[in-house]
Amino acid sequence: MFSKEVYVRRRAALLEKMRSEGQSGLVLFIGNAEAPAQYKNNCYKWRQESSWLYFFGIDEPLYAAVLDIDSGEETIFANDVELDDIIWMGPQTPVREKALAVGVKNSAPLSKLEECLEKAAGRDVHFLPPSRYYNTMRLEALLPGKTPSEALTKAVIGLRIIKEDIEIQEIDKACDLGIQMHSVARDAIRLGIVEQEIVGLMEGIALAKGWGTSFPTILTQHGETLHNHLHDKVIEPGKLMVIDAGVENNMHYASDFTRTYPTSGKFTTKQREIYQIVFECNELAFSLTKPGVTYREVHLATARKMLEGLSALGLVKGDLDEMVAAGIAGLFQPHGLGHNMGLDVHDMEDLGENLVGYEPGQTRARQLGLGSLRMARHLAPGYVITDEPGIYFIPALIEKFKREGLGGDFVNYQALEGYYDFGGIRLEDDVLVTADGARRLGSGRLPISPDDVEKAMAK
Amino acid sequence: MFSKEVYVRRRAALLEKMRSEGQSGLVLFIGNAEAPAQYKNNCYKWRQESSWLYFFGIDEPLYAAVLDIDSGEETIFANDVELDDIIWMGPQTPVREKALAVGVKNSAPLSKLEECLEKAAGRDVHFLPPSRYYNTMRLEALLPGKTPSEALTKAVIGLRIIKEDIEIQEIDKACDLGIQMHSVARDAIRLGIVEQEIVGLMEGIALAKGWGTSFPTILTQHGETLHNHLHDKVIEPGKLMVIDAGVENNMHYASDFTRTYPTSGKFTTKQREIYQIVFECNELAFSLTKPGVTYREVHLATARKMLEGLSALGLVKGDLDEMVAAGIAGLFQPHGLGHNMGLDVHDMEDLGENLVGYEPGQTRARQLGLGSLRMARHLAPGYVITDEPGIYFIPALIEKFKREGLGGDFVNYQALEGYYDFGGIRLEDDVLVTADGARRLGSGRLPISPDDVEKAMAK
Repeated sequence: MFSKEVYVRRRAALLEKMRSEGQSGLVLFIGNAEAPAQYKNNCYKWRQESSWLYFFGIDEPLYAAVLDIDSGEETIFANDVELDDIIWMGPQTPVREKALAVGVKNSAPLSKLEECLEKAAGRDVHFLPPSRYYNTMRLEALLPGKTPSEALTKAVIGLRIIKEDIEIQEIDKACDLGIQMHSVARDAIRLGIVEQEIVGLMEGIALAKGWGTSFPTILTQHGETLHNHLHDKVIEPGKLMVIDAGVENNMHYASDFTRTYPTSGKFTTKQREIYQIVFECNELAFSLTKPGVTYREVHLATARKMLEGLSALGLVKGDLDEMVAAGIAGLFQPHGLGHNMGLDVHDMEDLGENLVGYEPGQTRARQLGLGSLRMARHLAPGYVITDEPGIYFIPALIEKFKREGLGGDFVNYQALEGYYDFGGIRLEDDVLVTADGARRLGSGRLPISPDDVEKAMAK
Repeated sequence: MFSKEVYVRRRAALLEKMRSEGQSGLVLFIGNAEAPAQYKNNCYKWRQESSWLYFFGIDEPLYAAVLDIDSGEETIFANDVELDDIIWMGPQTPVREKALAVGVKNSAPLSKLEECLEKAAGRDVHFLPPSRYYNTMRLEALLPGKTPSEALTKAVIGLRIIKEDIEIQEIDKACDLGIQMHSVARDAIRLGIVEQEIVGLMEGIALAKGWGTSFPTILTQHGETLHNHLHDKVIEPGKLMVIDAGVENNMHYASDFTRTYPTSGKFTTKQREIYQIVFECNELAFSLTKPGVTYREVHLATARKMLEGLSALGLVKGDLDEMVAAGIAGLFQPHGLGHNMGLDVHDMEDLGENLVGYEPGQTRARQLGLGSLRMARHLAPGYVITDEPGIYFIPALIEKFKREGLGGDFVNYQALEGYYDFGGIRLEDDVLVTADGARRLGSGRLPISPDDVEKAMAK
């Protein structure tokens, strides 16, 4: 946990923001409950709700809190362990002490929460969109028919999106663990073993040193299948292996890196040509990342660079600006360039992708690729974002473009047929926007140039 | 997945059981949905509902099924992936084919489930107690105000409690992985490292070779705290480290072993004395395990053995049978001797502990220890149970016994004061009840005698 002052400051800033937006009433936070995997005594690994962690830090189930926007009064609701439970759980710190440790003076049993909300009848009660089934049920029971507060959601996003120095230190640590995990994975690639073996090795490191992985690891020789969490294939020669994985450290900050490796240790000429384009897009995006520009512009600049490279290989043809405008890059990279990252790997995605990644006046494109961009905002110091261009040859998508004429005259479908068994490449770093530019997070960088990757794999 | 015939046979047996109990109407099964950890695109590792796995095998989210007890008609409800989704997910097998592969002839989109239940208005709809918040919400939406069916619950327990040969093979595999994982953990014990490091190593093996661990690993130098999932302590000399952990294999069968190691590699005299008692209790329980006896009797026989050993050390005194009757063993082992194990590590615990572990005519004791016994039934061939005696010195519990006079004249509280920093010992194997006795599951056995443990740690 951070020091008491951190949480006090954050909550004060939240209430100040709410007041400055003309809001009044109460703010209700509901922490997570344990999530049963099979039955109530066999749960998934405990994970607290991220906004709760941000404002209250207490990393335990079944907590709630109410903040009074008008009076500033703060109360934490949770149950103390009963005497008999101490026999099973060992000595426990009382709720009152835990609340005081994060600067909240009032605490009460959970059963008093209903009462507190009843007393507030007629006043606004602001709460965030729930992220789990339990929280949905709990909110519906407490405040039947009420909907989440957009004012609160925006105020929370406004705070969490700018990372404090102490948060950046944690993200740097999560990145160092992520780099360590990826390095072990790279060194473990061997023809003939099952992908799952490497995934186990990776998750073991994440669990030994941190909370675990920050999202389900993608490790596949079919990188062109973007939503692919199977790891049941034997590693075969001549394939490209996409590894997209990150660590959540013990303070619950995420990292998220992607590298793509030739399973045989050396790229084929064809693989290297495409890899080089993705690598240059990654480097370009980083070089353009600085306060004042929008990440939408950076996305489009990398799309242009990508089309330039593909054009040189004869896979597309035509004017680059026209191709960018026509969304041709989306055929090869149907996802966005990156997303915010922090306490969640897609930071605050439960609060609403558009509220997190788009400013008033920015509307989300409907085009393939650009339409999936999770982060379009003007960049500002303290933003932490991912830089993750990719090129994939997705037969079903290419066929759809051809069938529906979506590629105009820009796409060389005949040449693309030679890439139907290519797979995909994605290269991802985590980036902090600084006062005058950007810094890659973590104290080193995973080998990324095609030469460096081959060198690392030869070791 | 098992072959089609397995699932066809199990469902036929279920409906036959329901009919023979005079039941009619429909049986509704709701499979699991993905469980969000932070937001809907960042979920915990996918785990299907166990009874769904048992009767339908399809290991994917958002499936449901209706069986008609009267007509025998079977329908699986699930949505096919849409054309556009194939772009992201790769080619997918249609629901219809998946249903046929487990012998279900009818399939329909999930949206037809409501219609199917509406058509059945007036007929009974039997369903199992839900195990997750999602399933609770879903059932409440489908069948508002209805409660789970005890007839169905009992019929399902009646089938799942007797393990088929193909299931025993899977449990043997899960045990072999569990033994491998425990062996690595034992070899990794080193003074000065943090417990979490070993846990990561263990989980890595479970994930590399199987689905993962079958429950959150217990690895602690405070074995006396039974509900302890923290792993943040540095390993210190002279302690006892309890490791209670199992693997769930890729067919979702569980293993569950416990061993206790002296952190310094050698037991102290005091540790060895207590360890020897627990070891003998484990051996005794196994030797008594055979068809016809109740596991309640086995529990009580080990309780007697335990008190005999503690008596020889002067920690308790008095007539052994009187002490057993007075529940004095519960002061040292406040939990039961074991539980059923199968697709869940506490098999079918979501269906109700008493229905699973107790027969008509058996009532659960209220005594500490015996009252926590999850499995009391007459043993029968095909039962898979754990054998896990333990001795713990829990200061808060000893003080409570002393304060409230719960130990009568049997307990030597003064002698026990010398054990307040002892910790705890538990030794657990997984056991199959056979036609004429019992077999320990897995192809080997983790070293368990005090000499063998010291020898293994010296390597």
